[in-house]
Amino acid sequence: MTNIKMELSYDGTAYHGWQYQENAISLQQVIEQAICGLTGENIRIIGCSRTDTGVHAKKYVCNFKTDCKIPPEKLPYALNARLPSDIAIHHCKQVGEDFHARFSALSKKYRYAILNAPFRDPLLQHRAWHYPLPLDMDKMRLAATHLVGKLDFAAFMATGSQQKQSIRHMYEISLDKRDKTLYINLWADGYLYNMVRIIAGTLAYVGCGKIDAAHIPIILAMKDRTGAGITAPAHGLMLMDVLYAQDESARDYL
Amino acid sequence: MTNIKMELSYDGTAYHGWQYQENAISLQQVIEQAICGLTGENIRIIGCSRTDTGVHAKKYVCNFKTDCKIPPEKLPYALNARLPSDIAIHHCKQVGEDFHARFSALSKKYRYAILNAPFRDPLLQHRAWHYPLPLDMDKMRLAATHLVGKLDFAAFMATGSQQKQSIRHMYEISLDKRDKTLYINLWADGYLYNMVRIIAGTLAYVGCGKIDAAHIPIILAMKDRTGAGITAPAHGLMLMDVLYAQDESARDYL
Repeated sequence: MTNIKMELSYDGTAYHGWQYQENAISLQQVIEQAICGLTGENIRIIGCSRTDTGVHAKKYVCNFKTDCKIPPEKLPYALNARLPSDIAIHHCKQVGEDFHARFSALSKKYRYAILNAPFRDPLLQHRAWHYPLPLDMDKMRLAATHLVGKLDFAAFMATGSQQKQSIRHMYEISLDKRDKTLYINLWADGYLYNMVRIIAGTLAYVGCGKIDAAHIPIILAMKDRTGAGITAPAHGLMLMDVLYAQDESARDYL
Repeated sequence: MTNIKMELSYDGTAYHGWQYQENAISLQQVIEQAICGLTGENIRIIGCSRTDTGVHAKKYVCNFKTDCKIPPEKLPYALNARLPSDIAIHHCKQVGEDFHARFSALSKKYRYAILNAPFRDPLLQHRAWHYPLPLDMDKMRLAATHLVGKLDFAAFMATGSQQKQSIRHMYEISLDKRDKTLYINLWADGYLYNMVRIIAGTLAYVGCGKIDAAHIPIILAMKDRTGAGITAPAHGLMLMDVLYAQDESARDYL
């Protein structure tokens, strides 16, 4: 069988997240059905991450094993014709049989968007969290510096989460702004459940003065979800990139 | 009665354009109903432009006359609470009784977005025209120079259009690109029916080599719709700004 690495993007608004589940439509199910329609195979695809309901992806990576003889470079055209317009396959290639979209990933980049304006923006309604209180980006940047490094992020993990090992290496957090939208860019080797959304909610609380930037190290040390800010809504979150050892871009850094 | 100038933005995907019509939902109708719900008045609002089905607005201007005593600066809050999330009121102020959103406008700025990539982008599905053939921006810029000035745009007007006077003053056309999206920015004193979409379709034809940039003056001189390129789809179009004599920004230029 051939192991295919597939890159895609999607608008997650209409889906109950990536992961297959009973009684709700998931991205995994829709893409598996498209592959089945094309090749006749009931294959299971392996995703790089279980994104939540409403979360988007500019670049998501998955893999699947197939006996289909269609050349990988033709697969995006054949699959896009069978997929709804809120999903698009951008690239497929054959990889080694041990490549696993989730376990082989070295790091991932996420972006969280906050519309910081008095009124909502209809053109960003499913893309950015509308936060009307003025946010001080310098305070948020200062708070973010405390979240960079190999740290125990237990305080930034959803309560009830199953993950036991809560140390993650955050390589970088940067903030930028375009018009009235503030972007929090994160790059880490891995993420706990809801970690990016809790970081976004906490940085927003810092930006509007509800949490002092200097308290972030204390919140981390508490290792308790109650110390951090709110969980920002899913629709502001976007998976931007997934890096693997064989990527040129990853080789430069890791 | 008080004459109120109102600025808003909207995602036009769900609407059959701005203008009120029987048997189809329009932006005008939804906004008039919100005002009626708030003030009890069956007023008619005057829009700056009749945008087509699926066209968006980053800044749209309208006006209406009311006996309502709510201070204008409070109106956006009161109206946004009554409007769906794909419409947002940003600013209201009292203006002179002769202010008319359409006739008082000195000029308007539009932007047309083209996704120039082999595959569609789910995150731009209702925002940009997906044009997969590679576009040469230099050729498009050269073609655009021929469309700047006080010209007869009859060749860039939808067939069957009622407008008799087809001379418009195009102040500026510029092109820029972000990631894989090409933006055509237009600024004119007025536009004929479908003019921006025909210009966008024609520039795309120039960009991929179907029309020679040097032929644009000939197409203009023909004054016939058949000479120009296709009408680009509505969902790539966005009204960006409307300028009035009393605007500081307009005063600098006109």
